Amino acid sequence: MDNESFRRYAHEFVDWIADYLENIERYPVMAQVKPGEIRSKLPLSPPQSGEPMERIFSDFKDIILPGITHWQHPAWHAYFPANNSPESILGEMLMAGIGAQGMSWLTSPAATELEDLVMEWLRQMLGLPAGLQGVIQDTASTATLAALLSARERATNYASNEEGLRRPLIAYASGETHSSIEKGIKIAGYGRRNLRVIETDAAFAMVPAKLEEAIRSDKAAGLQPAVAVATLGTTSSAAVDPLRPIGEICARHGLWLHVDAAYAGTAAVCPENRWILDGAEHFDSFVFNPHKWMLTNFDCSAYFVKDPGALIRTFEIHPEYLKTGVDPYVKNFRDWGIPLGRRFRALKLWFVVRSYGIEGLQVFVREHQRLAQLFKGWVESETNFEVLAPVRFGLVCFRFNDGRSEEELTKINKVLMNRLNASGTIGLTHTVLSGKFTLRMVIGSRLTEERHVRRAWELIRSAALKIISA
Amino acid sequence: MDNESFRRYAHEFVDWIADYLENIERYPVMAQVKPGEIRSKLPLSPPQSGEPMERIFSDFKDIILPGITHWQHPAWHAYFPANNSPESILGEMLMAGIGAQGMSWLTSPAATELEDLVMEWLRQMLGLPAGLQGVIQDTASTATLAALLSARERATNYASNEEGLRRPLIAYASGETHSSIEKGIKIAGYGRRNLRVIETDAAFAMVPAKLEEAIRSDKAAGLQPAVAVATLGTTSSAAVDPLRPIGEICARHGLWLHVDAAYAGTAAVCPENRWILDGAEHFDSFVFNPHKWMLTNFDCSAYFVKDPGALIRTFEIHPEYLKTGVDPYVKNFRDWGIPLGRRFRALKLWFVVRSYGIEGLQVFVREHQRLAQLFKGWVESETNFEVLAPVRFGLVCFRFNDGRSEEELTKINKVLMNRLNASGTIGLTHTVLSGKFTLRMVIGSRLTEERHVRRAWELIRSAALKIISA
Repeated sequence: MDNESFRRYAHEFVDWIADYLENIERYPVMAQVKPGEIRSKLPLSPPQSGEPMERIFSDFKDIILPGITHWQHPAWHAYFPANNSPESILGEMLMAGIGAQGMSWLTSPAATELEDLVMEWLRQMLGLPAGLQGVIQDTASTATLAALLSARERATNYASNEEGLRRPLIAYASGETHSSIEKGIKIAGYGRRNLRVIETDAAFAMVPAKLEEAIRSDKAAGLQPAVAVATLGTTSSAAVDPLRPIGEICARHGLWLHVDAAYAGTAAVCPENRWILDGAEHFDSFVFNPHKWMLTNFDCSAYFVKDPGALIRTFEIHPEYLKTGVDPYVKNFRDWGIPLGRRFRALKLWFVVRSYGIEGLQVFVREHQRLAQLFKGWVESETNFEVLAPVRFGLVCFRFNDGRSEEELTKINKVLMNRLNASGTIGLTHTVLSGKFTLRMVIGSRLTEERHVRRAWELIRSAALKIISA
Repeated sequence: MDNESFRRYAHEFVDWIADYLENIERYPVMAQVKPGEIRSKLPLSPPQSGEPMERIFSDFKDIILPGITHWQHPAWHAYFPANNSPESILGEMLMAGIGAQGMSWLTSPAATELEDLVMEWLRQMLGLPAGLQGVIQDTASTATLAALLSARERATNYASNEEGLRRPLIAYASGETHSSIEKGIKIAGYGRRNLRVIETDAAFAMVPAKLEEAIRSDKAAGLQPAVAVATLGTTSSAAVDPLRPIGEICARHGLWLHVDAAYAGTAAVCPENRWILDGAEHFDSFVFNPHKWMLTNFDCSAYFVKDPGALIRTFEIHPEYLKTGVDPYVKNFRDWGIPLGRRFRALKLWFVVRSYGIEGLQVFVREHQRLAQLFKGWVESETNFEVLAPVRFGLVCFRFNDGRSEEELTKINKVLMNRLNASGTIGLTHTVLSGKFTLRMVIGSRLTEERHVRRAWELIRSAALKIISA
């Protein structure tokens, strides 16, 4: 395709994207297709000769789009959000256009230096301790794995990389922590049986005394406690593990403390939410995802470390073909994570932070928190519904409950969720809290307004009524 | 930013990108800035209030762009390419606009099904064995780590995830394999001392007999050989490890065979290059990067496995909040790699394969191979230059050599590379082959024509002349 054709199609695509975002409410939130349906409409083999872009684009609209679940829909109340924003899309466009790859400082100095700077901006915006240094990872799963690996190396005095991990290291997290901790524990060679699951309280937050008990008991058994993961805003219920007591325990026992604030970290742009970070001076690493609640296109995960040396010693490699003359004077972010090649993700993040400013992001977070409280109030005031966890951010955990058996309630709430999702009107997901099948209503989409939340509640209520009266 | 503003800016950005690609030769290939220069021009703290896009965009042009190394430049002969293409940029634009996240089938059925299909297309295009199944990873480093982890689990009957890796597993690769193998060996807990470095021949390819010798010796010592990595197109010299004998050895001794064809894999779209895949029936996993030589924006790495069950058993997690009603009937790609969240990368790849067709991609690869042979001929016909490795794809390893001492030659060739890079006219990198400082001339940029290669050679020759006559 020559440049003029690119120009023509790209303008056409821009209009399509703008129209899409304008009319997004016309689409069903969750794709209404069956397994295999999309694939069955596409040829089994690639074309021998090139095809015109008109045909590809029309297949995109006719075949692919019906199989898309619309994460940017204002009635997206499922999972946590993965917001984009016009500003972030603009950043992605430039990034794609210049196609720079920032594995080393030399391979695009601006990519490294802007990433370094924007991460420092985020640190300031969240009120994280001075001196932390940041790097962008693809996801919190990868960042958490980096933390578990750094902790492994530090605990073995950097011998594991050399010899393999030959003795058990023990890790600690609550039963409410994200599945990526278990995944990372397996990858990093700790072994799942060496992950201690610490009890949570009635608000689904880790009980620090139980953590210390477990550490002492492992130490008494001659085992080596290495790392604890605290979560600020768990996936199931947005519970907040108490950072200060956990941090003090980790400090006392020499554990690496990793903080997973993938979702709720963004809330700390508002000073009134900074209580979640009380004790931040104790952590060794911290991750939150601007690609969740900070309007930055997926993927963009912000990982902060207290001691970059521990991270670099964990990952660094120095093949001849990657050496550059400036290595002693620059950051080469390839040594700050798993992949070698790196996209210029800082660009979209810089676009977002500058466009919204701190105040713009605060307005956005506060509005979602307000709407979540509103929704919570409606649920509480309804006899046959109940709220199942404290509401701190944009997540409300609730269910229909008219006093039937737990088994029946599970069944009814499952049907309720599936019907709503199948209707295309709103998107919801579930979890289980204290054995109860729980609906998760997330308010976090950029386009969500009070009218959407109000309508969601009406739809939920009337669907429940229909189910029980059937 | 409202939709109409987005539309306006996005149109402006499209024109900027089209102009950029049209005028890319006006930019210096390698950014001509000093460490810290870009960052020093930007404010230390984020803005309190939002800023207009005009100002952000003009800062991008004035401050960021001078710090960009132009990977899409036709005189980009450094590293391996990370090509984009107009078609791929269009795909990235739509991907950014819809902002879908494909961690599970349910979270965007089309994202999963298109990925599944396009990977099958790639399998057919490269002539890989039927039955292999594919998944997109960010980079070959991550794919290789996935292979090393799957091999670890298979070798320990899936006990390492549970208990940690408690006995040494041995891995094998040549000294010319990519640094990501060492990195993965460390991450996966093998320990670097359990990576055996197998000798290479005069063409920098692994000597199979030496591999078998090492395996036998480890077995005799009571150790457990687990995995071998063969490379098709090494980073230093594009050497090709002989797959068939290596595969037979691995089969004989029960090793997992992973094949790293990150760069050269694309060459197999041309039947005349398929000799590199002779013995493909023996490998367990294979990776190549469409983001290198197949015109697809970074990042997009194609990972194929013979037994998806081994991959899934290595990575799967099943928290309640991720369970969906269709799990038994669909692929959930979150269990095929490290990150949970996933971009809809298949879209840009689909755009590229359909737009170019098999023939279009063949034309592209063949032209680069022709240009590399041309350049090689020029080097060979020049008294004071020499070619240092076989030229099979788009890489020519060479150096200036007028018969001086090795020490002096290293110095001269280093100066030569640095001067050329500092001039902005072409971009080159280096490696060391058999102790010799070697210049790497890669011909692989989408925009590179014969005139660029010719000019590069003139620049190299005249710069060398200037250095020795100074």
